[in-house]
Amino acid sequence: MRRFVADKAKTLINRSRTTCSSSFPPPIITSTSVLQRLTSSSSSSSQSPAVLRFLSTSSDSMSSDYSSTPVTLNNVNPKVLKCEYAVRGEIVNLAQKLQQDLKENPGSHPFDEILYCNIGNPQSLAQQPITFFREVLALCDHPLILDKSETQGLFSADSIERAFQILDQIPGRATGAYSHSQGIKGLRDTIASGIEARDGFPADPNDIFLTDGASPAVHMMMQLLIGSENDGILCPIPQYPLYSASIALHGGTLVPYYLDEETGWGLEVSELENQLKTAKSKGINVRALAVINPGNPTGQVLAEANQREIVEFCKKEGLVLLADEVYQENVYVPEKQFHSFKKVARSMGFGEKDISLVSFQSVSKGFYGECGKRGGYMEVTGFSPEIREQIYKVASVNLCSNISGQILASLVMSPPKVGDESYESFAAEKEGILSSLARRAKTLEDAFSNLEGVTCNKAEGAMYLFPRINLPDKAIKAAEEAKIAPDAFYARHLLNATGIVVVPGSGFGQRPGTWHFRCTILPQEEKIPAIVSRLTEFHKLFMDEFRG
Amino acid sequence: MRRFVADKAKTLINRSRTTCSSSFPPPIITSTSVLQRLTSSSSSSSQSPAVLRFLSTSSDSMSSDYSSTPVTLNNVNPKVLKCEYAVRGEIVNLAQKLQQDLKENPGSHPFDEILYCNIGNPQSLAQQPITFFREVLALCDHPLILDKSETQGLFSADSIERAFQILDQIPGRATGAYSHSQGIKGLRDTIASGIEARDGFPADPNDIFLTDGASPAVHMMMQLLIGSENDGILCPIPQYPLYSASIALHGGTLVPYYLDEETGWGLEVSELENQLKTAKSKGINVRALAVINPGNPTGQVLAEANQREIVEFCKKEGLVLLADEVYQENVYVPEKQFHSFKKVARSMGFGEKDISLVSFQSVSKGFYGECGKRGGYMEVTGFSPEIREQIYKVASVNLCSNISGQILASLVMSPPKVGDESYESFAAEKEGILSSLARRAKTLEDAFSNLEGVTCNKAEGAMYLFPRINLPDKAIKAAEEAKIAPDAFYARHLLNATGIVVVPGSGFGQRPGTWHFRCTILPQEEKIPAIVSRLTEFHKLFMDEFRG
Repeated sequence: MRRFVADKAKTLINRSRTTCSSSFPPPIITSTSVLQRLTSSSSSSSQSPAVLRFLSTSSDSMSSDYSSTPVTLNNVNPKVLKCEYAVRGEIVNLAQKLQQDLKENPGSHPFDEILYCNIGNPQSLAQQPITFFREVLALCDHPLILDKSETQGLFSADSIERAFQILDQIPGRATGAYSHSQGIKGLRDTIASGIEARDGFPADPNDIFLTDGASPAVHMMMQLLIGSENDGILCPIPQYPLYSASIALHGGTLVPYYLDEETGWGLEVSELENQLKTAKSKGINVRALAVINPGNPTGQVLAEANQREIVEFCKKEGLVLLADEVYQENVYVPEKQFHSFKKVARSMGFGEKDISLVSFQSVSKGFYGECGKRGGYMEVTGFSPEIREQIYKVASVNLCSNISGQILASLVMSPPKVGDESYESFAAEKEGILSSLARRAKTLEDAFSNLEGVTCNKAEGAMYLFPRINLPDKAIKAAEEAKIAPDAFYARHLLNATGIVVVPGSGFGQRPGTWHFRCTILPQEEKIPAIVSRLTEFHKLFMDEFRG
Repeated sequence: MRRFVADKAKTLINRSRTTCSSSFPPPIITSTSVLQRLTSSSSSSSQSPAVLRFLSTSSDSMSSDYSSTPVTLNNVNPKVLKCEYAVRGEIVNLAQKLQQDLKENPGSHPFDEILYCNIGNPQSLAQQPITFFREVLALCDHPLILDKSETQGLFSADSIERAFQILDQIPGRATGAYSHSQGIKGLRDTIASGIEARDGFPADPNDIFLTDGASPAVHMMMQLLIGSENDGILCPIPQYPLYSASIALHGGTLVPYYLDEETGWGLEVSELENQLKTAKSKGINVRALAVINPGNPTGQVLAEANQREIVEFCKKEGLVLLADEVYQENVYVPEKQFHSFKKVARSMGFGEKDISLVSFQSVSKGFYGECGKRGGYMEVTGFSPEIREQIYKVASVNLCSNISGQILASLVMSPPKVGDESYESFAAEKEGILSSLARRAKTLEDAFSNLEGVTCNKAEGAMYLFPRINLPDKAIKAAEEAKIAPDAFYARHLLNATGIVVVPGSGFGQRPGTWHFRCTILPQEEKIPAIVSRLTEFHKLFMDEFRG
């Protein structure tokens, strides 16, 4: 594996996809206003990165003479136009340009590499995969070698044993066949056992829907719940923009609730109540509450007492609780612990028929960070048989999720145990990654907190920090003149001066008049000191220039 | 691999998912009628297989007291209710019951196994994966072993070399990282080269969007094109029900055109013109024409001259041509050849800006049949930069397709070449599968054609036969009394008598008053004679009983 080190990481992250959007829809996003803005700005949108990509690479699309083709911005599905995904932001576009500059003219900028702190994609930043997981996946991909003597020398004994077990769970041992639409039953059994071990409450394999990462599961639930723009989903602000994008694509209304930065991005039930009331007064039928715990982009871990209040609120208001729990293994502070919402609800005495709850999990996060494998699942509880039939039908239309992702989801929920041959190396890999992430998080948190006019949340969990910058008036005015959001203005200056790529808070939403940026804790540990010193130096110069 | 033979295939296919639907929406499906029918029959729908599955396995869902949960058939997204997917049909439900019977009481039925001829899932019926493809996938999953000496003994030299090449194409060699939203650029280069070699016309890697199988690509295009129920998509009848399902989920209108059974399921442009005119007169804005070639469920391969007419029609009428070409490697008769619609359009002189064309391809079909890997791509040509930006944005919301599926899609389009170490064994595996499929297709075609009152299309391509049964009046009357479609009545009798599972034509649509069933050509070759003799015997008895 030493042959496969990070020398190319830069080119991958060059294409990283979670970036900035310079505008964020206002509270209770009305489809029309966003649509009007998008359609009316269609001429300027031809300058966006995706278009530039096409223009720069597809020779005959240089001309705009597509006048005889039938699909235009005037007749494309307006919900698609409405959808915003903080993916094609100026900042990453600029970073890609600078990277190209550095390649063509080394020394052309005051830094020699671009440091991508904008996306939760650990293996693109040279994090190595967990060996045991990859051994099992390789053996399941090519079971012909399982019986060969050479295999004993290449693979751990327990990975061989696990591959046999998994193949036994797959009908006909056919890893190349469509599975049951919810995923292979034996793998769902394993996942349900993992959930039981985690929560101390029963889990039913028939409640598990294996999906290609968590995103399709979120879409599936939005598709079920949203029939028209009168259907609303309560979403945190700031939020991971999958939620706003999915709600827009399904034609619903995002009902925002603000996390309270003063209390470490706390989730106040009074805020939920107020926003629900406001939405109802506007005729919105609020269907569900989305909660991201640990938080993205905010990195907080909810306290159990707070989770109980949230469960009570959903129960009382008849809302489906959509629990994004993909960062459940990313908790970095001893005083906080992850509790699944299902565990919390069951411990309050709420059973299957008392509360509708969907938990999303993914193999992309945790300490394994297997983003490219597209594995994940949702655990669906508290829906009537008739509704579960509808969920099953929607899942069936795409046949099934990919089998390697299904296998990996089962491995993540049932890793090697004490006594297994791989246990010690597995535990060392896991501990190495998680402790390094915790150190990186703390170092960056301290560095941000030491900057003039910056306050930074505690790095409790997930993979991000979301510091707030109190920008001087002069900087805000300069941003206005440059026609970009003040935090995008700051991020652009930061990139130009240091090569560090962060995502402006406006891509996630934030209280009006406050400015933030999201920075991952994922760069290689040895690069963190350089990041801190460059950032500190830049910030001082920026403030000196704009303090006014 | 001999350890992994077909002893469990039966349990997988027990869960197979392409089955029957006893009703098919009438021409120009109006949302309301289907919706009303579905919602008004919600009480009976609780008897459908998916619900039975939940009821039989989830202990506490036996009671129907979900009255305090918020999601009901009255407030779920009506588009989801409207969606029909021939997935949960009675026939497969019955087959699963019979299989359980046979397990618990061997000898309880006049057959000793269920023969699943209902789904295009080759590896579930013991078709073995192509060795070279699986070697490369395993090495890419666990690159740590690439340098080890034991690996030389386990893997072919060219699979090791190919794995190195592919890893070099992946930024940072990170097979666990999110890729570019369209898929890894190097793999798209390989696929574009494969398309060029196939067609003799240039292909641009920036036109390729790698997807988790072909289904998500079809959804993506429907999402783009359908803004409301006024947007219509011309679809063949009979059709693979992904199209009707996707159109329903996106809230559009399916505009049917009938394939002409008399001319071997020919596609008549006059029929397209008539249906387009009718749709327009009803205020439907027809956006696209979907063509499945080779056909599913009909198995025909379009003649090039016919394809030229279709291209002309789309050009003249301003329609996007959605070309489902997933069976491009499944052609079994020497007089027919697959031609991609892009090749046909380009050979007519239509360039990038003259016609909007999307070609769908999948790793699930062909001779490789890697359904579980969920790999595929669409090649998108003839869309303006502004619209391509929208497609890119929709692709981005789900981050990327799974990397193993991406790698496999590149392998399928660039298999081993003469001189490569694997070439001979690869060619033998490929030829073995394709020639066996051709023999099976011909044997089944002949058998069906020999049955009283049955005519069968020529098995030109794809994986299916779609014979027509001229059912006696007495059988039709008996079906009416049993309240099921006559072809479902026949399929049910067939299953009960022989254990053979086929899909009634009503699951795909057919001309009113005609009756068919779809039968795959996939059962293991040694089982075909038994299938033929059982089927022949059954049919004679059935006709004797109902001839009247």
